[in-house]
Amino acid sequence: MLERSLVLSAPGKAILHGEHAVVYGKVALAVALDLRTFLRLRPAGGSVSLRLPSLGAAASWERSRLQALRSGFSADFDESKSPSVEQLNTLREFAGITAESSAPESLATLAFLYMCLAISAKYGWTEEELSLINSWAFQGERVIHGNPSGVDNAVGTWGGALRYQSGKITSLKRVPTLRILLTNTKVPRSTKVLVADVKDKILKFPAIMNPVLDSINAISQECQSVLEAMPGNPSPEYYPVLEELFDINQHHLNVIGVGHPSLDRLCRVTASHGLHSKLTGAGGGGCGITLLRPDTSPLAVEAAKRDLCACGFECWETNIGAPGVTLHSSSALKAEVLHALSMS
Amino acid sequence: MLERSLVLSAPGKAILHGEHAVVYGKVALAVALDLRTFLRLRPAGGSVSLRLPSLGAAASWERSRLQALRSGFSADFDESKSPSVEQLNTLREFAGITAESSAPESLATLAFLYMCLAISAKYGWTEEELSLINSWAFQGERVIHGNPSGVDNAVGTWGGALRYQSGKITSLKRVPTLRILLTNTKVPRSTKVLVADVKDKILKFPAIMNPVLDSINAISQECQSVLEAMPGNPSPEYYPVLEELFDINQHHLNVIGVGHPSLDRLCRVTASHGLHSKLTGAGGGGCGITLLRPDTSPLAVEAAKRDLCACGFECWETNIGAPGVTLHSSSALKAEVLHALSMS
Repeated sequence: MLERSLVLSAPGKAILHGEHAVVYGKVALAVALDLRTFLRLRPAGGSVSLRLPSLGAAASWERSRLQALRSGFSADFDESKSPSVEQLNTLREFAGITAESSAPESLATLAFLYMCLAISAKYGWTEEELSLINSWAFQGERVIHGNPSGVDNAVGTWGGALRYQSGKITSLKRVPTLRILLTNTKVPRSTKVLVADVKDKILKFPAIMNPVLDSINAISQECQSVLEAMPGNPSPEYYPVLEELFDINQHHLNVIGVGHPSLDRLCRVTASHGLHSKLTGAGGGGCGITLLRPDTSPLAVEAAKRDLCACGFECWETNIGAPGVTLHSSSALKAEVLHALSMS
Repeated sequence: MLERSLVLSAPGKAILHGEHAVVYGKVALAVALDLRTFLRLRPAGGSVSLRLPSLGAAASWERSRLQALRSGFSADFDESKSPSVEQLNTLREFAGITAESSAPESLATLAFLYMCLAISAKYGWTEEELSLINSWAFQGERVIHGNPSGVDNAVGTWGGALRYQSGKITSLKRVPTLRILLTNTKVPRSTKVLVADVKDKILKFPAIMNPVLDSINAISQECQSVLEAMPGNPSPEYYPVLEELFDINQHHLNVIGVGHPSLDRLCRVTASHGLHSKLTGAGGGGCGITLLRPDTSPLAVEAAKRDLCACGFECWETNIGAPGVTLHSSSALKAEVLHALSMS
């Protein structure tokens, strides 16, 4: 049992360049967003209580029931192996989650239960321990996703920006902190269907599409060079290049068929404020990312946000290149975070 | 002197795919448009009169003055050599056109005068004679352009569709007649500046831009295959492919930097009617081309044209794959052509 309250956080994530092309062995860049998920651990007597206020979910289990559940498993929990179908089915049954449910709160509860049973209480983060956190976070991804790339847990653990290619993940040496808007068009889509549609298009027009993937690969590499050069030489001339790369890649993503009228609108609205955007992730709706320059005035940002919200979009201003998983002292937390945590 | 009135026409031209990429040795496809320029030749006594009603220009010269002008030239007129600076300066002075004037009516008058002095009256078009017409049309281009590619005169002479790559022009074997809209955004631009901007962008991001040129090259080749396959197998399934190629190339042209908000708007307006468009030619404004399917209803076309005109654009419905230079019998001409000719 923990003797005091602990507050931890991990960053959000966005794909800067390389979505979809990554499936074909091209480079992708993932960055940590300073839209953080906070976790407060508190002593709670004889039960384990989970409260997920953002997802509107809560659950509580007697420690004795959890111990019985744990000892009922034949196989060990091991961060190097995928959670077994048997383990996941047992946990779903225990938590009262139907086999079909893939609602975020169901999957989050399932991942928490799995981690709670598997991880012994200990913290303190050397590089080796960060690797351990990353491995367990990957297990959580496996519970939720089935076949995760490992990028999301790595960005969450180490923060900053990562390069991903053909299964190999490496951290960028140095990354500047860049201001962005993250905008959710709220248009739902299926990543699986989009990935399959891209594949069909490449098979239909290989000579037209393969060069586009090569160009996206070169964009990711050019962006990596710029990001790594920026901290050592904070020159304003890097921003137009980053903006141009956003514009070009957005056109490419339209070419490979993962654009959407809502994303066109997002780009048009931000362009009318002199800002450059692209879709981020699977496309076909979902989220867009908009670059802000250091000298973009708060008034200009507010005006852009207002126009985006008027489209029915949800919009957050944050930074990319954010720190990874972090242990916070409560006294240093912002009031809004403390308020959100007190609601759980 | 001709004993009777002759009516001739030559088609307009549009680039289907490959604009800009052609500068870098990639394939381009040019097609003859059924937006024709008509010429009526009539006996007119002791003078040569030129009337260009569409350009609002008219001029008349005594035959004796033209003969004196002709004999005053030291060098011969030859369709295999570029018009000399001396010849052009003399003609400008004769016609009262200042050295700086590049207004369409000035250049058209200059080209007419040059051809009038150079060509002896004769007609009748074997393939050899078409080559001669093409050579003289190329001379007209040289008067107007300086450094023409030879595509415009070739499309005007032979009609149909042409493939152009690295200076080599070949006619497509068979071409279907396809309905299109040609829309002028009326946004002026400089082809020279646009070509230079594309070059700068390629030098700045070679690894990103060269694959885009390769993809445009593949689009031109794919389009050529489809066009050549269509006359032998009039299947409706070719149209979605042609539409997809339009969409992809329009994104590519945005990537290489020759898009324009007016062209985005043109594409958006036609998309709202289920039609697919791309810029044609230099971009940065200028004209867009919109594909119509055989089963696109006249009502749908009228609605699209109305919306395009409401943007301040000018819009013509016509065909591509039109016949080349043609000698008409007056009795077979449409009333609107006869009316336009009678105004000269």
